[in-house]
Amino acid sequence: MAVVVMKFGGTSVANVERIKNVARHVKREVDAGNQVAAVVSAMTGVTNQLVSWVRETSVLHDAREYDAVVASGEMVTAGLLAIALQSLGIQARSWQGWQIPVITDKSHGSARITGIDGEPLRQRLAAGEVAVVTGFQGIEPENNRLATLGRGGSDTSAVALAIALKADICDIYTDVDGVYTTDPRVVPKARRLPKVSYEEMLEMASLGSKVLQTRSVELAMVHRMRTRVLSSFVAPDAMPAVGGSNSWEDIGTIVCDEDEIVEQQVVSGIAYAKDEAKVTILKVADKPGIAARIFGPLAEANVNVDMIVQNLSADGRHTDMTFTVQASELPRTLEVLKGTKADIGYFDVKSSADVVKVSVIGVGMRSHAGVAAMMFKALADKGINILAITTSEIKISVLIDAVYAELAVRTLHTLYGLDKD
Amino acid sequence: MAVVVMKFGGTSVANVERIKNVARHVKREVDAGNQVAAVVSAMTGVTNQLVSWVRETSVLHDAREYDAVVASGEMVTAGLLAIALQSLGIQARSWQGWQIPVITDKSHGSARITGIDGEPLRQRLAAGEVAVVTGFQGIEPENNRLATLGRGGSDTSAVALAIALKADICDIYTDVDGVYTTDPRVVPKARRLPKVSYEEMLEMASLGSKVLQTRSVELAMVHRMRTRVLSSFVAPDAMPAVGGSNSWEDIGTIVCDEDEIVEQQVVSGIAYAKDEAKVTILKVADKPGIAARIFGPLAEANVNVDMIVQNLSADGRHTDMTFTVQASELPRTLEVLKGTKADIGYFDVKSSADVVKVSVIGVGMRSHAGVAAMMFKALADKGINILAITTSEIKISVLIDAVYAELAVRTLHTLYGLDKD
Repeated sequence: MAVVVMKFGGTSVANVERIKNVARHVKREVDAGNQVAAVVSAMTGVTNQLVSWVRETSVLHDAREYDAVVASGEMVTAGLLAIALQSLGIQARSWQGWQIPVITDKSHGSARITGIDGEPLRQRLAAGEVAVVTGFQGIEPENNRLATLGRGGSDTSAVALAIALKADICDIYTDVDGVYTTDPRVVPKARRLPKVSYEEMLEMASLGSKVLQTRSVELAMVHRMRTRVLSSFVAPDAMPAVGGSNSWEDIGTIVCDEDEIVEQQVVSGIAYAKDEAKVTILKVADKPGIAARIFGPLAEANVNVDMIVQNLSADGRHTDMTFTVQASELPRTLEVLKGTKADIGYFDVKSSADVVKVSVIGVGMRSHAGVAAMMFKALADKGINILAITTSEIKISVLIDAVYAELAVRTLHTLYGLDKD
Repeated sequence: MAVVVMKFGGTSVANVERIKNVARHVKREVDAGNQVAAVVSAMTGVTNQLVSWVRETSVLHDAREYDAVVASGEMVTAGLLAIALQSLGIQARSWQGWQIPVITDKSHGSARITGIDGEPLRQRLAAGEVAVVTGFQGIEPENNRLATLGRGGSDTSAVALAIALKADICDIYTDVDGVYTTDPRVVPKARRLPKVSYEEMLEMASLGSKVLQTRSVELAMVHRMRTRVLSSFVAPDAMPAVGGSNSWEDIGTIVCDEDEIVEQQVVSGIAYAKDEAKVTILKVADKPGIAARIFGPLAEANVNVDMIVQNLSADGRHTDMTFTVQASELPRTLEVLKGTKADIGYFDVKSSADVVKVSVIGVGMRSHAGVAAMMFKALADKGINILAITTSEIKISVLIDAVYAELAVRTLHTLYGLDKD
């Protein structure tokens, strides 16, 4: 008997037929004797419709009212799933964020969960009732108002609830059957990873792999909550229940502690992010405090600067500063730089969105030297020029011209032995 | 300065453009110095979509989950109207039923409001904030679950809120500009009534006039809450604010105490209801307790019996019993009668849905004799046969063949001097 949180995203509950399918997934777990809390997103398209109504009403709008409008989407799915479960003979009840309550801070539109009292819900679960919980939302208690967690927040809701319920696993059902070594659309030989460490998943999530929301992985990592990515589109009966057979852990990808992963590869996956833009500031005076003058105003304007490369220019007194930002933030970045030109003192600014960031990720890198050198050599052999580099303990990212993206990903996938047999 | 509750139905908030129009109606009142609480329904079509999803999920469904799903519609409108108001520079906040809270009983799907603490909201209003409140819903406190009031419940929400706020008037904005002496589609000479008494409105509402929900009128009557019916489709600037000029009470129809109506007509309006069905039970034994044997089982089956006529048959030992029910309840009625045939002991049952109930309504009847006699004579002069009659202190209803409906309504409208000059 296990306590299982099952989260179903928008495509998994896109219409009544799929909600009924989701109910059968839940039934499988209940029939196996597991206690289940199901966390649901809004039906695909519903949240977009709600957001567009808000924007049509006013481009500038009160984030608290935005939340009140947008939070309605999950209410619908939760109620429908509870009804679908009841019609399968399963005791079930829907819970809205404020009813549990899921407490959040005041950052409406991108709130953080600050607490969930899991005990009352745990008692219901122990009594055999399935709790169907609205993802993506909670309540800001001081003003008693609904708050949403921002796009993809239902993953975070699910992990937070799993922690509060001391669940054995948090199963995130989505439209893919797990986490892959890289995007299978780019590399047909990409393999599903049976297990991946929290740290690796965190890097993959923040590097553009859309399977799990970054914040949910952070939360899972901090609390060591085993989280599994699996597909709701597999027939409910064709899948073993959690704890139901020895093979249940072979389904999907389990995000877990690295100690749990017996045959750890040096590199676990190759990620790439296309929505990068490169900015180069030419001939900046090479003097103390110049980085602060450039990046201070950008930070104030909420521009997230990622990679930074500083080159000495020929004359030795000036430097060229290159950095990357999200492509969507490029116009704002150029605006800020224009306004601070006098203060910084530079010759010109050049920018390009025709770049991609390709990253190799693996906790094995910590104990293996030469991973980066291998990477640089393989890319050079293919004639791919590296525009910038950043590294962490378990990740190496390079910025390259966009035209080489697929070539680079395929080359690295083969290089680190990730190709399917 | 007045405290005004303004209620906007589904067609008044059918899309963002109309919600912005509603915001301008509210602004007119705020600009005039009034304190405003706005009660909103779901956008037209939204509730139907939600209900159909529930039914698609399961024909039999938990009423509490139905409520959780369906209550989401008003959340959307309330948030959007708050945003629209803010963008006009008006301080506003949306309130969901549970946030106020609007307390209800446990009759999910058709709950009754049992209490509203108006004081906190009153303070907000006094501080210049517009409260935008979700109609149609409240919270059942014992289980902390959403409950809806049933179709048309937003009118009741508005009146209940007006009472809790000790409002000066409850303005119900709809797609017609008031209550008419009869349906203008049948009688082009129908006039708008500037004022109508609670008692008359209650009869009109329960007799098929769809302008106000019956329960909302009952509530207004018990608490003497002046309630006005007016159109949201009139240009917001073309209408005086409440208390804003001497003529503001000339807009729409005010439902009020009969003492307030100076020139009271004997008859105020002619109502008709087409969804009636007539049932005749032939040759019932004429003995004590027979009515209980017929109508007891019907009441248990939740069939609402309206008019009842009992005729002695020729032999003096049997009687024919005729009564009317809602047309939609006719199949159930016949089913029940079939099951109780042995117990009642009758010869046959005949039924017809080709009947209408036409009613003349007016508090003036109390002090005027001969109203009914005039009616019967006028109908007889036109060759219209009366199948059944019921009366109350302020109403006379007759059941006639459906083909005569329009003729009867026009005849009576002229007879009682209601035709427009």
